[in-house]
Amino acid sequence: MSPRKTVGILGGGQLGRMLTHPAALLGIPLLILDSGSYTPAKQTLLAPEPHSHPDGPFTSESHIRELAAKCDVLTVEIEHVNADVLEQVEKEGLCEVQPAPKTIRLIQDKYAQKKYLADNGIPVAPFAELGVNPSEQDVQAVALKLGLPMMLKAKTLAYDGRGNSPLQSTDSAAIKASLDFLGDRPLYAEGWAPFVKEVAVMVVRNKEGEVRSYDAVETIHRESILRVCLAPLRGHRGVNQRARELAEKAVSHLEGAGIFGVEMFLMEDGSLLLNEIAPRPHNSGHHTIEACLTSQFENHLRAILSLPLGSTSLRVPSAAMINILGSSSSMDPVHHMADSALSVPGAAVHLYGKAESRKARKMGHITLTAESDAELNERLREILAAQPDADKSWIDPIAPPAPEPAHSHAKPLVGIIMGSDSDLPVMLPATKILDQFKIPYELTITSAHRTPERMVQYAKAASGRGLRAIIAGAGGAAHLPGMVASETSLPVIGVPVKASVLDGVDSLYSIVQMPRGIPCATVGINNSTNAALLAIRILGTSIPALNVATEEYSKKLEEEVLVKVGILAEEGWEKYAAERLKK
Amino acid sequence: MSPRKTVGILGGGQLGRMLTHPAALLGIPLLILDSGSYTPAKQTLLAPEPHSHPDGPFTSESHIRELAAKCDVLTVEIEHVNADVLEQVEKEGLCEVQPAPKTIRLIQDKYAQKKYLADNGIPVAPFAELGVNPSEQDVQAVALKLGLPMMLKAKTLAYDGRGNSPLQSTDSAAIKASLDFLGDRPLYAEGWAPFVKEVAVMVVRNKEGEVRSYDAVETIHRESILRVCLAPLRGHRGVNQRARELAEKAVSHLEGAGIFGVEMFLMEDGSLLLNEIAPRPHNSGHHTIEACLTSQFENHLRAILSLPLGSTSLRVPSAAMINILGSSSSMDPVHHMADSALSVPGAAVHLYGKAESRKARKMGHITLTAESDAELNERLREILAAQPDADKSWIDPIAPPAPEPAHSHAKPLVGIIMGSDSDLPVMLPATKILDQFKIPYELTITSAHRTPERMVQYAKAASGRGLRAIIAGAGGAAHLPGMVASETSLPVIGVPVKASVLDGVDSLYSIVQMPRGIPCATVGINNSTNAALLAIRILGTSIPALNVATEEYSKKLEEEVLVKVGILAEEGWEKYAAERLKK
Repeated sequence: MSPRKTVGILGGGQLGRMLTHPAALLGIPLLILDSGSYTPAKQTLLAPEPHSHPDGPFTSESHIRELAAKCDVLTVEIEHVNADVLEQVEKEGLCEVQPAPKTIRLIQDKYAQKKYLADNGIPVAPFAELGVNPSEQDVQAVALKLGLPMMLKAKTLAYDGRGNSPLQSTDSAAIKASLDFLGDRPLYAEGWAPFVKEVAVMVVRNKEGEVRSYDAVETIHRESILRVCLAPLRGHRGVNQRARELAEKAVSHLEGAGIFGVEMFLMEDGSLLLNEIAPRPHNSGHHTIEACLTSQFENHLRAILSLPLGSTSLRVPSAAMINILGSSSSMDPVHHMADSALSVPGAAVHLYGKAESRKARKMGHITLTAESDAELNERLREILAAQPDADKSWIDPIAPPAPEPAHSHAKPLVGIIMGSDSDLPVMLPATKILDQFKIPYELTITSAHRTPERMVQYAKAASGRGLRAIIAGAGGAAHLPGMVASETSLPVIGVPVKASVLDGVDSLYSIVQMPRGIPCATVGINNSTNAALLAIRILGTSIPALNVATEEYSKKLEEEVLVKVGILAEEGWEKYAAERLKK
Repeated sequence: MSPRKTVGILGGGQLGRMLTHPAALLGIPLLILDSGSYTPAKQTLLAPEPHSHPDGPFTSESHIRELAAKCDVLTVEIEHVNADVLEQVEKEGLCEVQPAPKTIRLIQDKYAQKKYLADNGIPVAPFAELGVNPSEQDVQAVALKLGLPMMLKAKTLAYDGRGNSPLQSTDSAAIKASLDFLGDRPLYAEGWAPFVKEVAVMVVRNKEGEVRSYDAVETIHRESILRVCLAPLRGHRGVNQRARELAEKAVSHLEGAGIFGVEMFLMEDGSLLLNEIAPRPHNSGHHTIEACLTSQFENHLRAILSLPLGSTSLRVPSAAMINILGSSSSMDPVHHMADSALSVPGAAVHLYGKAESRKARKMGHITLTAESDAELNERLREILAAQPDADKSWIDPIAPPAPEPAHSHAKPLVGIIMGSDSDLPVMLPATKILDQFKIPYELTITSAHRTPERMVQYAKAASGRGLRAIIAGAGGAAHLPGMVASETSLPVIGVPVKASVLDGVDSLYSIVQMPRGIPCATVGINNSTNAALLAIRILGTSIPALNVATEEYSKKLEEEVLVKVGILAEEGWEKYAAERLKK
């Protein structure tokens, strides 16, 4: 007998299925309420003896009451449940419900949710109530307030874009078309949020109110359906941390325990607007199964059972999630997407065990984990190419192709910078070495003295953009490497460039003699080759294959010398010296 | 309908259970043959509709035949199966069997297995046949040949030490006791292998003969039962690679597809002896679920179904597996072990769903993943402390305690070395910084000129021991940093120590002006503080928390200066300068 409480789940789809695995691992007895005996979730965990999973609609009062009688805690894998029954069940002391039915009810009404968040100081896009069957004039009045374009939205039962209609003009025809599309549901309007990225954060909260967030992810939608997540969120300095803090703050205003998916917009100016919250495991957290120390599913169970919350840390430097959506009633494209991932290293296929495919139905997903964004990017291109609706114009912005020779990589691990284009000839050997070791890098000019602001911005953003080392070349009063080191937490490698006087000693001293507190890894004068090799050794601490590559490189150096030893012995040193002079 | 072939598994225990998860993810229909309807494996995956899992002994011919009729491929989760029936089933074309029944039969007989491996050039401990009920004289004759102590072993049905008896002397009484313990099974004898470590490698092989190994692990047994695995294997240079090559070679001599567990002894001189092979998923590969890109279980299914083999690479720098064994019929200690892991970051609990506990029964396991051996070590100590039979003398050799102040850590990430004890005062500030950032390090003396062999050995072993950076201090003709850089693929940070003449410029030039090909990261003269801070930035590329720590450190430096700015403005510069002089 497990000493754990029995959990009842309303809903037996893929989210329930992914809850069954940690439940089995932790010995948590689960009962799943849904119609059918072979739903995705029921396939992957037997009910605890002597029970069987209840068969019936998860909205049915009698079924919920029957389930509650056998369980210690009820939870949901979908928010479109009967919150009233859940509230009564809890009031009657029949069973605990997590998260709180009140929270589920609040979230079911998108307008009420938005108002509650705004009232609690959470930044959201401007919005206004419209009600049921608003008149043309009502819509026009709201449009005057919010501006165009704006979104008309159903307050309830809206997901995957099904309750949204964008409005570009206040023509009668346009308004009528939108209102007809949305039908006679209660509506509200939302001002357009011209976001640069969509962002999501999973947050787990226990009954004591302890809140832990996962790293933010970038979510990429197509026709309002989530297609790809990239973790962690890259970009502006600190945006990941700010997104987490906002999500934690929003969830701290909700009642009850469990995992919450918080969706946000990242605006041009770096600010964040909260879009909406899901009171359950969420598609934007599926990567946490492989990529994090504790998955969103396990943490949901831990939270509702008052077990210690698990660490939300990433276990890998870079991860992605790609949905496998049905494209028709045929299962062939689904199997094709799954099978194509089998030959991609680091890809984990998750099929949901659904017997029938439909257009846009979530049939499974693929998680990718990688040692770097660049490695992930390459593998992601392979995975995306197997999506039935993929084309270059969709794939390239998500996972850019390899750069043209002598151009910067879109997901660099090393940044090469120099104070002046006159340093370029000295710095080019570094690019040759990085090319040879297939390290993604970027190269640009930024000067400590002539472009100080650009230098500071570059240095401050470097770590958040995924760089792991910076190579900086400078000559004379060579301040660039040390100044960059002062504005980043990355290792900075300084290359003293020999200027027209002092033989490079001025550059060397300027770079190596940094004050205590700010280190700069200095290599020999004009020796950008060694700077690149040092960067590779640094990368080797997180990418083990580069250790092997470095050993092979050293071995090759040894062999080259040994060849010369042989020729010297054979030809004699006078001939050898004469021939060397000719080269 | 899944397009995948249906797999039948003989055995429904924990190994079968761990096969069900990837089967569900990949949409592989599974039928599990074992007695009972609620075995560990049957709990976690329904049989494909309209089937149910067959209920009966996995050794029963009629049940195997019935299973074969419903499946495309049969496989095993235990080797003590009826190999004859499997062979017939395959001969009759009823069903494919993987791995080959011939291989299963070979492995069932430990003596035949050892002889086959030895005949194929695989190094094994010396051994000799004894047969059924050998006489005292037979045993004495073998002891003369193999030496004492030696092991008497049952050829078949021996696992977890149940068929082994060590023989320390050839006294009649000792021989009789051993033979009585082993009973009237066919026996053989094995010479003692005075190993320094036990090592295991999981190897997957597909039908085309492609073979891929996982990183080697150190296996730690107690009373012949596996208790702890540490991945990857640390130690002598190249031992991990050599163990993998030996395991791959051994498996390449076996027929059929699937995953194989290869157990080895690592001897004092660094050589490896093969101990035995399991033709199935193995306890020493359980960490692969969380720690590797593709688990041993998924790769077994991929191999037997001719799907592309998955990458065997580690996803994390350091991992461990700790078995949860029953200690009596009480489940309490089992739950205690599982629960204590919930508050350890990076610990994943796997309970096997067994209803009854018995002494030494495998009830579950815990996987630990960590960013470094040191982090793993600390967490492992917590996990081990919850084992009912744990005491300091058992835990400390597996997971050493934190060092005394000013002593080297057992699992260092940074090595500080210097050419002479006269460099110690200059190098001590590096230790203060590493202590402050809680970085595990070691400190020792090795001289390029006075202990050249020791220096080379240190440098060559550093990477395999888990170090990620070396700080080397030297003065005058300062060869140590560059020479060490020549013998390792790790980043080496050189600290030029100011000697009695030339103001340290000789040291600086000797360290920084390395030839193209071998980089040395040079910091300012006598500035070991910056060397340590640089090492921390390098570690930060694989341990994200150190990025944050570096930013906080820089912030503190800034604040310290700002405090001085305030005092200067308040007191005036004359008083300030006078007070500074007094310090």
